[in-house]
Amino acid sequence: MTLLDETLARIRPPDFAAGRAAAARHDTLTKPRGSLGVLEDLSIRLAALAGCCPPPIPEPAAVAVFAADHGVYAQGVSPWPQEVTAQMVANFLAGGAAINAFARQQEAQVVVVDVGVATDPAPGPGLLSRKIRRGTADMTKTAAMTRLEAVAALETGITVAADLIAQGNRCLLTGDMGIANTTASAALITACTGADPDVVTGLGAGADPALREHKVAVIRRALELHRPDPADPIGLVAAIGGLEHAAIAGFVLEAAAARVPVVLDGVIAGAAALVARALAADATAAMIAGHRSVEPGHAVALHALGLSPLVDLELRLGEGTGAALALPLVQCSVRALREMATFDAAGVTGKD
Amino acid sequence: MTLLDETLARIRPPDFAAGRAAAARHDTLTKPRGSLGVLEDLSIRLAALAGCCPPPIPEPAAVAVFAADHGVYAQGVSPWPQEVTAQMVANFLAGGAAINAFARQQEAQVVVVDVGVATDPAPGPGLLSRKIRRGTADMTKTAAMTRLEAVAALETGITVAADLIAQGNRCLLTGDMGIANTTASAALITACTGADPDVVTGLGAGADPALREHKVAVIRRALELHRPDPADPIGLVAAIGGLEHAAIAGFVLEAAAARVPVVLDGVIAGAAALVARALAADATAAMIAGHRSVEPGHAVALHALGLSPLVDLELRLGEGTGAALALPLVQCSVRALREMATFDAAGVTGKD
Repeated sequence: MTLLDETLARIRPPDFAAGRAAAARHDTLTKPRGSLGVLEDLSIRLAALAGCCPPPIPEPAAVAVFAADHGVYAQGVSPWPQEVTAQMVANFLAGGAAINAFARQQEAQVVVVDVGVATDPAPGPGLLSRKIRRGTADMTKTAAMTRLEAVAALETGITVAADLIAQGNRCLLTGDMGIANTTASAALITACTGADPDVVTGLGAGADPALREHKVAVIRRALELHRPDPADPIGLVAAIGGLEHAAIAGFVLEAAAARVPVVLDGVIAGAAALVARALAADATAAMIAGHRSVEPGHAVALHALGLSPLVDLELRLGEGTGAALALPLVQCSVRALREMATFDAAGVTGKD
Repeated sequence: MTLLDETLARIRPPDFAAGRAAAARHDTLTKPRGSLGVLEDLSIRLAALAGCCPPPIPEPAAVAVFAADHGVYAQGVSPWPQEVTAQMVANFLAGGAAINAFARQQEAQVVVVDVGVATDPAPGPGLLSRKIRRGTADMTKTAAMTRLEAVAALETGITVAADLIAQGNRCLLTGDMGIANTTASAALITACTGADPDVVTGLGAGADPALREHKVAVIRRALELHRPDPADPIGLVAAIGGLEHAAIAGFVLEAAAARVPVVLDGVIAGAAALVARALAADATAAMIAGHRSVEPGHAVALHALGLSPLVDLELRLGEGTGAALALPLVQCSVRALREMATFDAAGVTGKD
């Protein structure tokens, strides 16, 4: 049995009894019923995930930034040079990127996982060198990667998540870096949801409208070439995905198997989460939508996943920034359930 | 010159040059331009408020929960017993309320300010006993308080803010507790914005639709009796406001005078902020809308203030909970501006 198969076999449905216990507990706490809104629902989901009420506070937390390059870059889908992927990896390791600033505020650990950067980043603390290959192939010409490579990337994500959990982390956050990865994300979201490429494709990290049209045409060509089958998620991600998509899917699957919440970042995570869900439907119980990005495919992915974003601040950066912003909201939702006094204990009179 | 007059005289327009410097700095940082969305705008506002770029990180932070009772309670506008105000003050001091749980997560200090609770809470660490009177009078019969009492409550808020800033806090958050305070808030928002009471009045902490209709009728009676003049904000808050509204308005004014950001909580803070703005239009530069509550008057107040909420999670609890949830977003916005590397420094190539 492969690591992927073992992981999928460990993913179980949420514990609805624990969720019901959390809902009942909320109604005893010193606040008007339901007055914490979405945070009550979130804490109920986390109780069901953990299988106990109250669930543990989701801290400490770690964000894994999966970095990879994309062969489809050759089709001119990004205004950025491809070397920016490796340069940004160096920036993450030096602590100078947005995700580093946010993670310092939220007291979250940052690890950078090279699953497929085209060049080799200089080693440094916080870098996990797990390169499967030097970027994907151009999906308009051939499969982005082989099935074996897709499984290796999935299992890399599984291992990274398992290691972070073994180190004591009780909340995982997805991050990503890869020039041209919004094109691969749009292709994956199209293939998984049936939405039209024109609906799911956006401006990414700085395309103009003409470049966006070009991205749509590139995605259509790739989809016509491969005709990916949503019932074969490994074949699908191998044909049109990125190495970071496969790795993030594995990362999400291991979080679900370990019953640890995983906060999804933006459109890249949304695309990867669709792949994870296709492999194990119950994995959605562990998924929290950190934010909604400007990228239109993200909303399509979240809708298909049945997730509502916690934050909506017109971000379109990636790296895990949207997940990092949402982290304290997730933690507060559990704090309320764990730490608030009941009406009885506090001597507070209920309403009529 | 009174403390209120002195405070108003210290409130100056934002420093637009510092704001422009922040906008220019953002465009040098290692991210696609504008990709931090609303957080970029927020950090630019905070630079203009501070008068320097980058502005200081808004921490440590303190939330002041202003507690008071309302004479209009006698009109049957709430399904909760009035003694819940004092009981919840005890709950805050014991650390058992939602705001305590959230403040622990966000590492914010909580102080509870009794500006007008009908009974006397037991003294305890974290309680500031600054009672102006034992609740307001019934605004459907007479003015809720005298002008002198309104000024005293405003100056109490000023003093609380000044003390918290003197203790080193660099971000203030508003909180509130008071049975029937959504009725007074709706009256204030109506009087300040011209919106109809039926539009701004909601279910508060648990009214049913019939009780909401009754609240609207009570507010109409109070407004017909007093015909409050928006050009006379002290007379307005004295006639139909709460002691905590006046105190929160003063708290906001002192934050603005000290050029320290103040994160507003929900509908009570929104109503108080309208009073503060009527006293000093430039005070809005210090205001950050923490969240949007379910209470419909809150959106009306935020629109009138020209503020967009950072978080929208269907909360309707008060206490400062919505402000506390938004705090890390405010801090992250400044962290990005202060801590991110530039393209040049990080050796990251720009886009075409």
